[in-house]
Amino acid sequence: MSERLLAGDRRALARAITLIESARVDHREQAIFLSGCLRKSGRQALRIGLSGTPGVGKSTFIEAFGLMLIERGLRVAVLAVDPSSTRSGGSILGDKTRMERLSRAPNAFIRPSPSLSYLGGVARRTRDVISVCEAAGYDVVLTETVGVGQSETLVADMSDLFVLLLAPAGGDELQGVKRGIMEIADLILVNKADGDLRAAALRTQADYKGALRLLRKRCQDPDGFPNVLTVSALQRDGMEDVWAQMQVLANWRKERGHFAASRARQAVKWFHEEVRSGLLARIENDAVLSQKMQDLSQSVYAGKIPADVAAGTLLKTLT
Amino acid sequence: MSERLLAGDRRALARAITLIESARVDHREQAIFLSGCLRKSGRQALRIGLSGTPGVGKSTFIEAFGLMLIERGLRVAVLAVDPSSTRSGGSILGDKTRMERLSRAPNAFIRPSPSLSYLGGVARRTRDVISVCEAAGYDVVLTETVGVGQSETLVADMSDLFVLLLAPAGGDELQGVKRGIMEIADLILVNKADGDLRAAALRTQADYKGALRLLRKRCQDPDGFPNVLTVSALQRDGMEDVWAQMQVLANWRKERGHFAASRARQAVKWFHEEVRSGLLARIENDAVLSQKMQDLSQSVYAGKIPADVAAGTLLKTLT
Repeated sequence: MSERLLAGDRRALARAITLIESARVDHREQAIFLSGCLRKSGRQALRIGLSGTPGVGKSTFIEAFGLMLIERGLRVAVLAVDPSSTRSGGSILGDKTRMERLSRAPNAFIRPSPSLSYLGGVARRTRDVISVCEAAGYDVVLTETVGVGQSETLVADMSDLFVLLLAPAGGDELQGVKRGIMEIADLILVNKADGDLRAAALRTQADYKGALRLLRKRCQDPDGFPNVLTVSALQRDGMEDVWAQMQVLANWRKERGHFAASRARQAVKWFHEEVRSGLLARIENDAVLSQKMQDLSQSVYAGKIPADVAAGTLLKTLT
Repeated sequence: MSERLLAGDRRALARAITLIESARVDHREQAIFLSGCLRKSGRQALRIGLSGTPGVGKSTFIEAFGLMLIERGLRVAVLAVDPSSTRSGGSILGDKTRMERLSRAPNAFIRPSPSLSYLGGVARRTRDVISVCEAAGYDVVLTETVGVGQSETLVADMSDLFVLLLAPAGGDELQGVKRGIMEIADLILVNKADGDLRAAALRTQADYKGALRLLRKRCQDPDGFPNVLTVSALQRDGMEDVWAQMQVLANWRKERGHFAASRARQAVKWFHEEVRSGLLARIENDAVLSQKMQDLSQSVYAGKIPADVAAGTLLKTLT
């Protein structure tokens, strides 16, 4: 399977992802073996994270942006991290008809969010899926999220660039950006900059440029970043400019070693995260211990027992 | 000692804090016993976290704000979380002469940052110190930090209100606020709003009001929060207004149960944090394991081994 996958066979890729997302032990083992084979490909895609609330036009943007990349001869994979999909029953990318033209393009690969009940699990699988897409020769891997809970931070931790898509807004509607997002965005795109909304989009752009000016500059950014652009996904307007800005940022970081260093730091962070969650899993997988952890949490919440005493009690039962 | 402490004896308080900050096992045991006695007091202070870069006038502000509170008949404790103090050799509050009048006031208690080599340790001790000050009958416990690394988040996690102190700035100087701080600030104070800098302070205030308008409103905040005020610590101007705003916010949250819920959530967070760090400490305290963790981190950083495989390797050696 790994040869067909490396040759760019989409069905082999879909099958590999099914293995990665499977809960079956034998599938998991095959997936790990496969990952080992693919890792040697040495191929590198540009990993883009994209976030935006429902209604900002994410699907329309991804279709327009993806088609533009394909016209340039690039291969594009689109993934989703959607913690709400298991609850609502519908994935943000489940309905491929929302990206009808892109999903029919031979050089595009679209994959909906896996149905896992916890976000950490989705994140772990998505990281593996990104690697597989990279090995399969995709030039751009775009991971989309609706931004529920911590999903933006998780997606940012597996991306080279993080993009926030906004709709134009005025007055009271403005308070729409989740706190913390300014911290991770490399590029803010104000969509729907067409027709009646064009003026509002330009005002929104100016507002966000002003807000970003107040934040400390990041050392891994050239002047002018994080940047705010206006686009119209509907009219496929501004897509080349978005791609040009991404190239400027990626190349600047590559030349200075920030790009590779960021991936290396992300890998170490995931390693520590996996160790930490692996240690906690030992508590969670033990019926007695997990019950004790829950009981202690409730007692701490109710103020019956201080946090450090509760932690000491739990840790003592482990030895 | 606990009786004298509950009666408000400052020397008993200082002695209790020395026990808390001590690395000696017998001191630690006494401190835990003492904490248990004091917890029953049921006294509650307003816990205020304060951050600001060097030069914004933190000491001047704390002196002016503290003296104003004391004039109102309140008792004030000032603590510091300064991760840089062990490296620079000097603590931000080490030099009490910077708050000369406040440190001489009988109803004030000033304590410099403990000299611990790691921030997590400082945070843990500071949480205990806050509780002791609360039990000793202080009405306001203000914890100051210079905001190195994660110290703001740590201080916010032990505070009821988080205040960011800024200096007026114009043009290129503006990019001074650390990313992420907008997320946790309840109140932004632009200091030095006097003399020649008054106009710049008002402009800075307007800039930050504009930026905050772009962020999603928090459910635990009344209209108008997070708010931005101008003050002059030097002229002791605006202190009553700051206190009034804090009261509005604290009372609003108390009436709706957000205040108690936030403390309960903080306690559960610290409980989980203590369990997590306790589990990791088992690795760190084991010479062989900690070396293995370091080696694996380096291999992951160098791209020689993927994060999940490294985590699996480490976790396997634990069983």
